[in-house]
Amino acid sequence: MRTLLPAASAALALTVPLAAQDAAKPAAPAPSEIVAAAPRADWTPIPAEDLLVMTLAPDADGKPRQVVIQLIPAPFSQGWVHNIRLLARAKWYDGISVNRVQDNYVTQWGDPNYDNPEATGKPKPLPQGLKVMTQAEYAAPASIICCDINGNHNIPKQGWWPRSDHFRLRDSYSQNPGILNGFPAAHDRTSVWPTHCYGMVGVGRNYSPDTGSGAELYTVIGHAPRHLDRNIALVGRVVEGMQFLSSLPRGSGDLGFYTAAEADKRTPILTVRVASDLPPAEQPKFEYLSTESGTFAAYAEAIANRRDPFFIVPAGGADICNIKVPVRRVVAGQ
Amino acid sequence: MRTLLPAASAALALTVPLAAQDAAKPAAPAPSEIVAAAPRADWTPIPAEDLLVMTLAPDADGKPRQVVIQLIPAPFSQGWVHNIRLLARAKWYDGISVNRVQDNYVTQWGDPNYDNPEATGKPKPLPQGLKVMTQAEYAAPASIICCDINGNHNIPKQGWWPRSDHFRLRDSYSQNPGILNGFPAAHDRTSVWPTHCYGMVGVGRNYSPDTGSGAELYTVIGHAPRHLDRNIALVGRVVEGMQFLSSLPRGSGDLGFYTAAEADKRTPILTVRVASDLPPAEQPKFEYLSTESGTFAAYAEAIANRRDPFFIVPAGGADICNIKVPVRRVVAGQ
Repeated sequence: MRTLLPAASAALALTVPLAAQDAAKPAAPAPSEIVAAAPRADWTPIPAEDLLVMTLAPDADGKPRQVVIQLIPAPFSQGWVHNIRLLARAKWYDGISVNRVQDNYVTQWGDPNYDNPEATGKPKPLPQGLKVMTQAEYAAPASIICCDINGNHNIPKQGWWPRSDHFRLRDSYSQNPGILNGFPAAHDRTSVWPTHCYGMVGVGRNYSPDTGSGAELYTVIGHAPRHLDRNIALVGRVVEGMQFLSSLPRGSGDLGFYTAAEADKRTPILTVRVASDLPPAEQPKFEYLSTESGTFAAYAEAIANRRDPFFIVPAGGADICNIKVPVRRVVAGQ
Repeated sequence: MRTLLPAASAALALTVPLAAQDAAKPAAPAPSEIVAAAPRADWTPIPAEDLLVMTLAPDADGKPRQVVIQLIPAPFSQGWVHNIRLLARAKWYDGISVNRVQDNYVTQWGDPNYDNPEATGKPKPLPQGLKVMTQAEYAAPASIICCDINGNHNIPKQGWWPRSDHFRLRDSYSQNPGILNGFPAAHDRTSVWPTHCYGMVGVGRNYSPDTGSGAELYTVIGHAPRHLDRNIALVGRVVEGMQFLSSLPRGSGDLGFYTAAEADKRTPILTVRVASDLPPAEQPKFEYLSTESGTFAAYAEAIANRRDPFFIVPAGGADICNIKVPVRRVVAGQ
């Protein structure tokens, strides 16, 4: 029998097979098994216009490295999302690199000659047509999700998960953590905003009131730095290839930037394309599990109270960043 | 001026220098600046007997890779801690390897031929004298930290942080998150237990009632998998060299195990030594910031309410895994 540690609750994680001597244990399904049994109708397609395909240089063994990012849908960050599509279509991202990897924090990519303490050349000019956003756009009005027709703040509108309290879902960073359109979020009485969970993608910026253009992006590679919520624009999440960004060598310069002496560690980004611009046969297709579905409710409850054979003490709750909305690639014939 | 993202709140993180045009902003100190100004007396030395020095094979560039782990002090997990010192002193760990790296979850090391689906040889015999622990030992009695002499459950005994509520410190996994002896923990009315934050080290096990010997260890490399709390023994945390474990290539087998085809990705562990067994000149020395100190109180408050120049909206709270107890290496003459 295999040693240990249970499968993570990610949709694609595999469960430990049970050996004969474990057959007598109650076999409550693991979260991943609940997801695997979801009916086809519980999955929501992600528009190709919302998918970015980022191709890194091959790894040291010559293996290809492709990262797919889902851009966040309205009501969040649409000015930056516009800019990111524009930058991708101008091929501005082609030839930039990963310049910063700070352990338990972020991997960041952009022009190695823009605002980089280790710059050795001139910055790359930005394309025309980029929008400039204000700090107010880090969040959206709470009226989008709150409240029911009687104005009851405890009953959010359809679309927000959870619709009621089923288990301990506490948050040090907000009154109400949840999920909107498949993305982790939080709200109070006035606003709703996306949250900095593992794999979320944000927009590097300089000191306020600068809010960043979208030319400089980062993804979270450690414990959720939720203190960044409402302080930086979140624009999407990595839905495939996260391991290519999280396992890069950490930079030894300030804030994890690669120093000039380790410039060869900067991973080149060959191309970034909006999936809908690719030839149809090359367009990756992804879908996520609807948070309105019964499958999602069962999945979240199983995460909060693990009863599959490895576990002894169910937690009784879960952090919003551990209730990862399952996302999967659609393969032909599925 | 540098582009960016703020410094992480780790003790050693560096802050972004302010350019001239930012000079007018209020300059509240960053958490790292508060720690840097701590008086000498606020630091508590870590006994050499509690430090493990794990030397990995050099990296692809020939650079050395050393990881230092602090073993958790009483009241937690002392049976496993005994075993780990015994295994280190028997040199049992010498020659094992990292066999599993699962993204946003764990890096795990042990005998590649023990309970590994990709094993190709016979398991290494374990030394005599290993203790066998029960599941009850995943936690300690709450009486250790609770309550005050009047039995008030809202006022924990000295040693537990926080002593009272200063900001939002909510937890989906317990009623009372906190810190004990410098380690993240949580308690309810009956028990207190360490928590699975980034960098914590735990004991791989098979299905219950097996609780693991300590021969197979893992560390958390992603968002805190707190559902493992009270389900696995936590025995320490990485205090130096975490980047050597977190940046390893992810395994492509089930649960992130390296497959037989990628056996060359298993990082060899050359030696593991208890620091107190090393010649005095080679013993690393570490200390942590006392959570009883005023510096720690100011540090935690600054994490919960970032007011340093990068920030616009203070969070108003913090997750226990983001209130990382500062640990630093003591250098000669400090």
